[in-house]
This record gives sequence, C-alpha cells and structure tokens, in this order.
Amino acid sequence: MKKIIFCLSVCLTLFVFVHTQTLQSPGGRFTMVFALESDGTPNYTLSYKGRVVIKPSKLGLELKNDKQSLLNGFEITKIDTSSFDETWKPVWGEVATIRNHYNQMAVTLGQKETGRQMIIRFRLFDDGLGFRYEFPSQKNLVYFVIKEERTQFAMTGDHTAFWIAGDYDTQEYDYTESKLSEIRGLMSKAITSNASQMQFSPTGVQTALMMKTGDGLYINLHEAALINYSCMSLNLDDKNFIFQSWLTPDGNGDKGNIQTPSTSPWRTIIVSDDARDIVASKMTYNLNEPCKLENTSWIKPVKYMGVWWEMITGKSTWSYTNDYPAVELGVTDYSKAAPNGKHGATTANVKKYIDFAAQNGFDAVLVEGWNIGWEDWFGHSKDHVFDFITPYPDFHLQELNEYAHSKGIKLIMHHETSGSVRNYERYIDTAFKLMKQYGYDAVKTGYVGNILPAGEHHYSQWTVNHYQYTVEKAAQYHIMLNGHEAVRPTGIARTYPNLIGNESARGTEFQAFGGSHANHVTILPFTRLLGGPMDYTPGIFEMDISKINPSNRSHANTTIANQLALYVTMYSPLQMAADLPENYNRFPDAFQFIKDVAIDWQDSRYLEAEPGYYLTVARKAKTTGKWFLGSVNGYNARISNISFDFLETGKTYIATVYADAKDADYKMKPQSYTIRKVVVTSKSKLAQPCAAGGGYAISFVEADKTQTKGLKKL
Amino acid sequence: MKKIIFCLSVCLTLFVFVHTQTLQSPGGRFTMVFALESDGTPNYTLSYKGRVVIKPSKLGLELKNDKQSLLNGFEITKIDTSSFDETWKPVWGEVATIRNHYNQMAVTLGQKETGRQMIIRFRLFDDGLGFRYEFPSQKNLVYFVIKEERTQFAMTGDHTAFWIAGDYDTQEYDYTESKLSEIRGLMSKAITSNASQMQFSPTGVQTALMMKTGDGLYINLHEAALINYSCMSLNLDDKNFIFQSWLTPDGNGDKGNIQTPSTSPWRTIIVSDDARDIVASKMTYNLNEPCKLENTSWIKPVKYMGVWWEMITGKSTWSYTNDYPAVELGVTDYSKAAPNGKHGATTANVKKYIDFAAQNGFDAVLVEGWNIGWEDWFGHSKDHVFDFITPYPDFHLQELNEYAHSKGIKLIMHHETSGSVRNYERYIDTAFKLMKQYGYDAVKTGYVGNILPAGEHHYSQWTVNHYQYTVEKAAQYHIMLNGHEAVRPTGIARTYPNLIGNESARGTEFQAFGGSHANHVTILPFTRLLGGPMDYTPGIFEMDISKINPSNRSHANTTIANQLALYVTMYSPLQMAADLPENYNRFPDAFQFIKDVAIDWQDSRYLEAEPGYYLTVARKAKTTGKWFLGSVNGYNARISNISFDFLETGKTYIATVYADAKDADYKMKPQSYTIRKVVVTSKSKLAQPCAAGGGYAISFVEADKTQTKGLKKL
Repeated sequence: MKKIIFCLSVCLTLFVFVHTQTLQSPGGRFTMVFALESDGTPNYTLSYKGRVVIKPSKLGLELKNDKQSLLNGFEITKIDTSSFDETWKPVWGEVATIRNHYNQMAVTLGQKETGRQMIIRFRLFDDGLGFRYEFPSQKNLVYFVIKEERTQFAMTGDHTAFWIAGDYDTQEYDYTESKLSEIRGLMSKAITSNASQMQFSPTGVQTALMMKTGDGLYINLHEAALINYSCMSLNLDDKNFIFQSWLTPDGNGDKGNIQTPSTSPWRTIIVSDDARDIVASKMTYNLNEPCKLENTSWIKPVKYMGVWWEMITGKSTWSYTNDYPAVELGVTDYSKAAPNGKHGATTANVKKYIDFAAQNGFDAVLVEGWNIGWEDWFGHSKDHVFDFITPYPDFHLQELNEYAHSKGIKLIMHHETSGSVRNYERYIDTAFKLMKQYGYDAVKTGYVGNILPAGEHHYSQWTVNHYQYTVEKAAQYHIMLNGHEAVRPTGIARTYPNLIGNESARGTEFQAFGGSHANHVTILPFTRLLGGPMDYTPGIFEMDISKINPSNRSHANTTIANQLALYVTMYSPLQMAADLPENYNRFPDAFQFIKDVAIDWQDSRYLEAEPGYYLTVARKAKTTGKWFLGSVNGYNARISNISFDFLETGKTYIATVYADAKDADYKMKPQSYTIRKVVVTSKSKLAQPCAAGGGYAISFVEADKTQTKGLKKL
Repeated sequence: MKKIIFCLSVCLTLFVFVHTQTLQSPGGRFTMVFALESDGTPNYTLSYKGRVVIKPSKLGLELKNDKQSLLNGFEITKIDTSSFDETWKPVWGEVATIRNHYNQMAVTLGQKETGRQMIIRFRLFDDGLGFRYEFPSQKNLVYFVIKEERTQFAMTGDHTAFWIAGDYDTQEYDYTESKLSEIRGLMSKAITSNASQMQFSPTGVQTALMMKTGDGLYINLHEAALINYSCMSLNLDDKNFIFQSWLTPDGNGDKGNIQTPSTSPWRTIIVSDDARDIVASKMTYNLNEPCKLENTSWIKPVKYMGVWWEMITGKSTWSYTNDYPAVELGVTDYSKAAPNGKHGATTANVKKYIDFAAQNGFDAVLVEGWNIGWEDWFGHSKDHVFDFITPYPDFHLQELNEYAHSKGIKLIMHHETSGSVRNYERYIDTAFKLMKQYGYDAVKTGYVGNILPAGEHHYSQWTVNHYQYTVEKAAQYHIMLNGHEAVRPTGIARTYPNLIGNESARGTEFQAFGGSHANHVTILPFTRLLGGPMDYTPGIFEMDISKINPSNRSHANTTIANQLALYVTMYSPLQMAADLPENYNRFPDAFQFIKDVAIDWQDSRYLEAEPGYYLTVARKAKTTGKWFLGSVNGYNARISNISFDFLETGKTYIATVYADAKDADYKMKPQSYTIRKVVVTSKSKLAQPCAAGGGYAISFVEADKTQTKGLKKL
C-alpha cells in the first residue's frame, strides 16, 4: 500500500510538474506558479512571502473571427529560464543608477488544433511580477485582430482600491478610495465632466491601480512598455473580485491589429507589505528597452514658469480676438482683428515672465496662446485647427526668443493639437524646424477634446502609435517632449529619455476648475507616477482663484507647505512654478524653496508612505549632492515622524523647514506657514505636524560650526 | 364678381410669386422653379423643353443634435440673380476652350426660429442644372455636424438606369441596366467581391447616375467640386422613384463636420434628348474653381506602358521573395531573402519595357512592385506597410532612371498606400523629394484595401480631405498625380490640373480578374468620365489571359478594334498601352494606331451615343491638328453610320480604319480585325459593321492626290 501511495504521489508530482511551472524572485519573497488548466487555458498564481496575492488567474487573448482564439487548447512545448542582473543609469531620474534584477521564465505554448505558438514571458523581481505575451514569427499566425485581451488578476478579497473610472479618453478624474465591492455604486459619482471622455463599464477602472488588502498588503496593477498596442484598463467582476484586461477599441470596435513577430506590453503586479516599496519601484522602467538614443547630451531637466495659469484661471485668454466666432487658418486676417485686450501671450507680458524667471534662476518660460487659431480651438472637431508656426500679431517670435536668450532663458514651445492628430502630423516637421530655428528645445503637446479621426480614442492603438511617433520624431530633432492628455506613460522614457514628462492625469489646473481632492497628491505617486514623471505644475501660492479672476470661485485644496513639498514628492525632471509672479512676490521666503530645490536626483529615500494619506521622501541632488525633503498630507491632520538617517554620518546640516503653521488648513487657512532653520545630523529625528491637505518641505545645506551657531538642533 | 375673381387672381399670383422663383437657362431650354412649401421646406423643380424632368424635390440638411435642422421653417430673405459667360482654356482636355455660360440664382433663406441663414445657389446651363448649399459666416451657425443631407431628385417615372451599387469604399462593379423598380431585386447580383467594400441600402446607387426615360430623355445625376465634404451616393425610394442624397459616414456615423463659412459640393442634373450632349457636357468642370496653379508648364499628357499587366495577370509578382509570411520595414533584411524568381520590377525587365517604349514613341514607363513591402501588402490593415522610398535589391533606382532618360523616357512612380493613409502622409514629402531627385514627374497612387484609420471609408469627408491633400502637395512639388481607388473625380482637375487621372471605377484590370461586361466601356463615358479622365489602361491585345498566365482563365471581353477605339472614346491625358510588349509585337499593324493616336485635343465631336450600346467620337489633336476617331460597341453587333463632316471642307484625307473583321466577336474571335485605308473628305459617310464588344478606330492624315492614288474613296 505504501508503495502504491508513493508511486501515486510521484506520478501526481510528475503530473503536476508537467503542467505547472514555478518561478521565484531573486530574494525569494515572491513565487509565481504557471499552470495549464484541463482545457489548456494558461493561468498564473502569485504569492508574496508565502501568501497568495493573485489567485489562479487566466491568461490569453480573444481574437476576431477565430473560434479557438489564443485562450485554450495549449500545451507547454518549451520552458526557458534565466536570470538577469544589471545596473543602468537613467539620463534623469529619482536615482542615478537603477538595478534591473529578475528571474525569468518564458513558457512557449503550442496550440494543438491550430499549430499556433504563443510565448508568455514572466519576470519576477524583488518587488513583483511582470509578464507579457509574445507572438513569434510563424506560418500559422501572421496577422490577427484582437477582440479582447483576457488577462485576469484575481484578487484574494474585497480589497480597498484607489481608483478612477475606466475611460478611453481621459484620466483627469479625482480618485475614489473604496472597497472593490463599492466601485459599482460609486461609479457615477466618480465621473465628472471632461472635454473628451468615454467610460465602458460600471466597474471599469484605469491603471496603475493601487490597492491595499485587509492584512496590510499593497498591490499595484499596471502595464509597462505600451508600444504599438492598445492601452489597457481593467474591468472588475465584482462578485468574484477578478479584474480582467479591457483594451481600448478602434473605430471598428476592434482592440488591436497585430503582425507577428510581436509582443504585448508587460502587465505588472507590484506587491509589498511596505507602501514605500511601491512608490520606489523601478519595475516599469526596467521592463522597457534600454535607451535607444546614442547622444543624450541635449536632454536636460527644466525648471520653468509659464504664461499659462493666468489663462487657466480665466484672468486672460489664449485667444487674441473676440471678433470672430470661428477662424480659418490662412484666410482669417488677424491684422484686421481687434485685440480682445486679455490675450495672455503678448510680447510685453511674456517679457515680464522672462525677467522674473531670469531673476529667480529658472531655466525656461512656457508660453501658451502664442499662435493663431485659439478663437475656436475646441469642442468642434475642427480638423485644420492650428498650424503650430504662425504667431499672433502681438507675439513676436524672434524678438522674444532673442530677449529670453539674452537673459539665459529658453522659451518652451506649445503645440496644442485639439485632438486633431492628423493635422499635427502634417505640420510636425515644419513646426519642429521652426523650434530649432528660434532656439526652442522643449515642447508641451496637448490633446484637448475628442480625437480626430472620429471613432478613435486617446488610448487606442492608433493614437498610442501617434504619441510614439511624436516622441521619436522629437528625438530626431533633439527636442524634449511633454505630452498632456496623452496616454499615461509606461516607462518608455527609459528608451526615449527625451520624453521628459506627461500630464495624463488630473493636474494642478483642476484646482482652478473647481478644486481637486486634498489628498490627490498622496495618491498620484502610487498610480500615475509609476510609469513616468508627471508635469503636475505645482507652486500655487494663491488658493482663492477669485483673487486672480473674480468670476472664478474655485479654491485650490492645498496649503503653501503642501505646494512646496510637491517639488520633492512629485518627481519630475520638468518642474513648473505655476503661479503668477505677483503671487510669488507676496511670499518670497516660501518661494525661496522653489528656487533652491533641485530637479534631478542621484538618490531618493521614501521615508513614509500611505496611499491616500501621506508621502514623505528625501532626495539627494545629482550635481550638488544637496538633500531635499518633501512630505504631503491627506485629509487628516497628522504628525510626520521621520529620522534623518539618510544624511551622511559625521556631517552637520542646516535644515530649512517650510511647514504648515498651527492654524493652517487647506480650506480655511492655506497660506499659513512657518519657516524655521534647525541643525540636523544623520542622528536627528523630527516630529512635524501637518495640516489637512498640508505638508512640509526641507532644504538641507551642509554647515560648519560657525554657520550653525545660535540655531536649534534636532 | 369679375372684380373679386380678378383681385383673387392677382393675390394668388402675388402669393405664388412671393413663394416661388423661376430661373431659365441661357438658351431657354431649361426652367428651374424654386419654391417654399407651407412649412418652409425649400424645393426645386426642373423642366426641359417644357416637360418636367425633376418633380418638386425637397432640399435641406439634417443636423446632429438639432431639432429643426436645416430642413424647414425657412423664408426667402433675398434673391440674387445674375448671368455669367466666360471661356477658359484647360491645360489638357477634350477641347481647347470651354465655355462657362449660365444664369444664376442665389436664394438666401432665413430660418425664423433659429435666426440661421442658408443660401441655395442655382446655376442653370444649357445642358442642365447645378446647385449647392452655402452656409455663410454667422453667429447662429458656426459649427455643425451633418447627420444626413436631404437633397431629393424626384423622378417622373420608372426610368431605365445604368447603375452600380451604392458603396462607401469601391466603384469597381460592372454596371447593371434596369428599371428603377428593379434595382432592389438585382442588388445582390450587382455586388461582386472587392478588397474593400460596404454597401448601405438595397436601393443605394452611386453617382454619376445615367438614366433614360421612357420618352427618350437622358438624365444624369452627379456632383461637382467635392472638397472638404463627404461623397454623395443616392438612395432610391423605389415606391415613389425619388432619389435622396446619402453621404458617406465617418467613424462615429456622422456625415460631415462643417465650419461656416462653407459650401457643399454642387449637385448636378444634366438633361438632354440627345445622349451626345451628356458625354460632351463640361458642366462638372465649369462648376469648379478656375485653375489655382500659376505655372502649369510642367503638366504634360503622358502616353505610357508599364510593368503592371504581367502582375495583374499573375504572370509575375509585385513581391520580391516568398521567404517571409510578413515583413517589417526597416527590420526585414531583403538582402538575405531568396528572390522568388517572378518579381516583375527587376532592372533587366524594366529595361525591356524602356527599350520598347522608346522604340515606339512612348513618353514613360510605370513600374509597380519596385519598393519593399509587397510580401504582405493587403488584407491585413497593416499600418506601416510601405515607405515609398526603399527599392527592392533587384531594382536599381538610379541606374534605371538614367537608362530611361538616356532614351527619352521617364519612369512613372508608384505609391500604393494599401489604404494606410496616415502612413502615406508620414512619408509623402520624403517620397516626393525622392521622385524629384531621380527625375520622376508623375505618380500613380493606390488605396487597395480598407482605409486605416478603422471606421473611415474611401469616400468619407476625412479621406476626401486626404486625397485633396495629396493633389495639392503634389502640385507644390510639380508632380502629376493619378489616383487609383480614390473617390471618383468631380471636376477638381480644373482647379488642380496636375490631377491628370484617377481610376476610381472598374478598370481594365478586371478583364484579368474574370472579365468585365462587354458594354462596360459604352457606359463609363456617361458616368465615371463626367467628373474627370479615367486611367482605364486600355490596349489589351491578348484576351485569353491563360496565354499569359496558365493559372488565370480570365477572358477579356473585348476585341482588338474595341481596344484601339478606347484611346479615343475613353478620353484621358494619361493613356497606357497596358499589354505586354510581346503581344504588341504579334500585331504591329494594329499597334500602329496606339503609337499614332494623340492624347490631348483641341476639339471633340460626339457622333453617336447610346449609353450601354455604343459611343462614337472624333477628336482633333491639339498640336498636330490631326483627327482621330473611335467607336465602341456593346452586346449587339451593329452598323455604325457616321458622316465625316467634322473634317475640314475642301481637304482630302487618308483614313486608316481599324475594324472588327466579319467574324470578330469579343468572346469567340476577339483578335480578328481588318485594317484598310480609304480616302475621305468632309462629305464622306461610313457604314461600319461592329462586332459585339467590338468597335473601330480611325486615324486621319491629310493627303494630296499622289498619296491617295489607288485607294478607295468613301
């Protein structure tokens, strides 16, 4: 009997062995088990520190006009395992070097009935799992159309999620924190009006999706390397708590046109019991291809201001004239139009910004509304909406660039496309040539409004291809690109580091469109920022927007200390001081932090993190080696308890702490702050009170005894 | 009582006068009556020689999200009448000068409830009516979306029509001749398979639509100046015999995005009791804007041959190799691929065509399949399908162009886009620059397969805009353009005479795809050719395609005499001798006509015409003044009775008559022909027997007595 049981066990083990494959992460924290179900459907299971975090979840794709699709009927024909451990240096980033260390398993699946092959490649890192589908070159699978990708992420329970509504055209929603089971009931409240939007399911959400389980585990779902594929959202089966991939359709309702050989983007699952590991994860970058640009010397982080907030608040206009209800480029004679008197991008006004930027050590000034066409620029599906090269009569292209350069300032170009994507591509070479001619090296692009051609969406394969085209073309011209309203980034800046930013989430402008949640900035680093930096455009010092434009009664839900902290917590190589010069002039001592803060880092230490509640990070500047720290807080006033053990031992520093005053509050008293200097060493600790919607920022300067005399020591 | 009746009559007349407006054609043949119905719906009625040909037919447009639309509630606010009489010279054409002579009425309509304005402009010519909608610049109508245009053409009865199925993507169908009431029952039979097609109604048809009434009146419906608007088809209410405009939708199902000020294309109604007036009508051109190009010296008619028919018949291939099921431009290494041995566009083969073309007085040689990408070029919605600049390893771009030029031949470029329209626009400047670099001055474009982006169609506003973009860009580069599978032309070549041709109908290639109707070429001049020349590519001497490619059992339904006649009856400034040189070498005496025939004309006389049955035309060459005549015949053998009174009086000519032999028949004996020389004067007459699917061609040379000695005189 024992023998029989033994034999059976061996057989069972062999059987299980044949149909399952196990992969461990380098440090052993994670285990991934790949399996084939009885009908040949592939699935995977992920465990973290011995606990299952992703229950057995199906993999595969449903194809158009294809009965079997790539869903089942598979058998394993090959397993390749390997390890990889390399360090690489990003051109700009939160850290100077990034380690790319994983164990890899590539499972080759053969579909008996069709003779087709598909590979699922798994990479297990110390912070989680990435996997993708690969479709090798083969006779039986040359071209196919995806009807839907059917990648599942089966949750172990009714986790808490920080989510925005699944949408084919915008990410500009405030986050909702709720249980998975509550998403359906909260969906309609979660959807606010936008210039272009289309939801697809009462339980659809976008990635990166941040979750927290009942036992304090943090789980993040996203994708990496979204190239020539449709952007993935997630649709929740809220009975079983299973997420399934939901791609963005094209004009025919199809979800992808694939030619083999080809790969899907990576689907990523980052897990930790420490929230700081999530925000610090570099998995998304690591899953992208190495830098493709030979020469990256022209790519430089930028600290800038802009003729922008005054239009966002409604104080001035992008447009030049009110004479015409609509304009026709090349036909409308602007020289005959009466200026409306509120045009923001006038030569005189731009010079004011250039002067202020130059006086305060900035690199550049963005100017929006410099070019003809703004009179009827959105909401009309206008095809020939901008030409990207013809300035308004009151914006003097050459004079302003020369003026700026004489003061060590560059202008940042603005290419609002209004979603008219073909029109932009028709002009893009001419527009980039003009930029080089006048000495612009960076452009902010925008896609406000529905995408033209009709039927395409901001996140469809077609439009993803367009964004990639603009990034690669900009690289050819040595132009840095910052894409607003584009698809959220997925680590592509590793390959094309001239993609120095995107908006692609709800940014600061919404503080002038009614306000954002006070804890919004405590969520974004766990979601939007995982795939690349965000041009969040912080630095708002006047929260009562009616003080800028009496007709706009918005209130920015943030404190000044919170705004300063953003320069550290919202990592970006492109940082804006978004407010008007006059508002900075009212608080020059607080403004000093913005002037001082670095924007490119050799090291970053996440000190405390709780999505939706708080985030504290210290960073060391790349060139100067100076440390800066930022902490942002959610709705609950709290005390941030941190240690300064990131500082170099044996050194003494003067820490200038910009914090909420005792009475500070994002709603009632947002401009109440204190600034104090204290002496710190690596042994110091801090217990810093933070207001609701507040935070604090610290700049550190190495000091000797003479400089620290008279200052309090922490 | 008499007084009361008198007053009532006066009032009635005044009432009628206020609500109807009448317009006459210059010669008085036509009367158009414009009226407003009781609910303010505009309509028009057209009479010819006192008989109503278009019954009261509604006008207007249905707008998206707009209750009243532009359909009713109108009142006449203004009437402007004028006359116009001008003569202009086309750069190339059937005639040297064209008279543009019409009486015009512009009716300004005000919509009381909305305060909106619309103008309907009528131009009444001696050959028919053109009218269009105009949307002036105004506060209450700046941007609108067309849900459907609702222009009616109410027929007076169950006319006979020569029609092809209404379709958003192709015109490549054989015509059906039937009563209007029979269209529905014959529709499924009328639809044959195509690489890209989408019908919209069981009674939908395309324009130009040729009809003949029971009383022998010819009526033709079409449009002119299709620019920045959606292409119009017609949907028939087959109970009441009313056609209504049916536009082509975009990816959202909308039918037009309009910004005021704007105009619709012209809707045209050509009427005559003489079919010759239809084919001779220049109304479509006259309704277009005058030539916009200052310099047209670079635009020259072209007689060409091509490395083309051998691929169409399947004897050789466009593609270079069979090694790969799919290729990736820039990645696939063609230098490593094994040539399939059947590639048509090899240096050696192209030189053969160049030699033959040079020896025989041609201007150019088209080469298809010269560039990488043909291995997987259609049916896959492949985005990056061609780059238009990289030749195959066996096609030597520089060498071949130099070789051609040394023999006085130019190569014609080929840009097959495979419907991937964005891809073409990305490459178009680079591709045109390459053309200029190597000395190409003409390009044939193609749009085989579904349009990308998905959801757009070949004839939607979006794609119409693309074709126009290519024409205008080609003009900038001094490049002549010939667009295949594009929207059928609507007279735009008046404005942009570098648009020297389109296919955009069922061309000669279908003779190798199973054959076309033997009377197809007796219909096309009444339909497709009204809007512009067709690159019909005639000159097939071998009708049994299996002699060229044993696997292809197609039979070309035509005789040699019919093929020769096409060079005169199918007017085009771009004429191809499409067959292989070896087939011309078998019939050098017949080929002589193709060598002799002119391709640009100072005068054209339509001698006999019956759509579907026969067409005979004589033309006088522009430079030499020589006359040529062609006659094509339908299914019924007949005798063509013509007079030569178009010849100059007092002169003597030798007419070389290429005709069907007695036993000729398009099916059984297509290659049976006779050639005879006869002496003719303007007093001569000819009774020429024509076979089914046959015809005849004549070249005229002025002669003196010595030359005519011994020849028969007609």
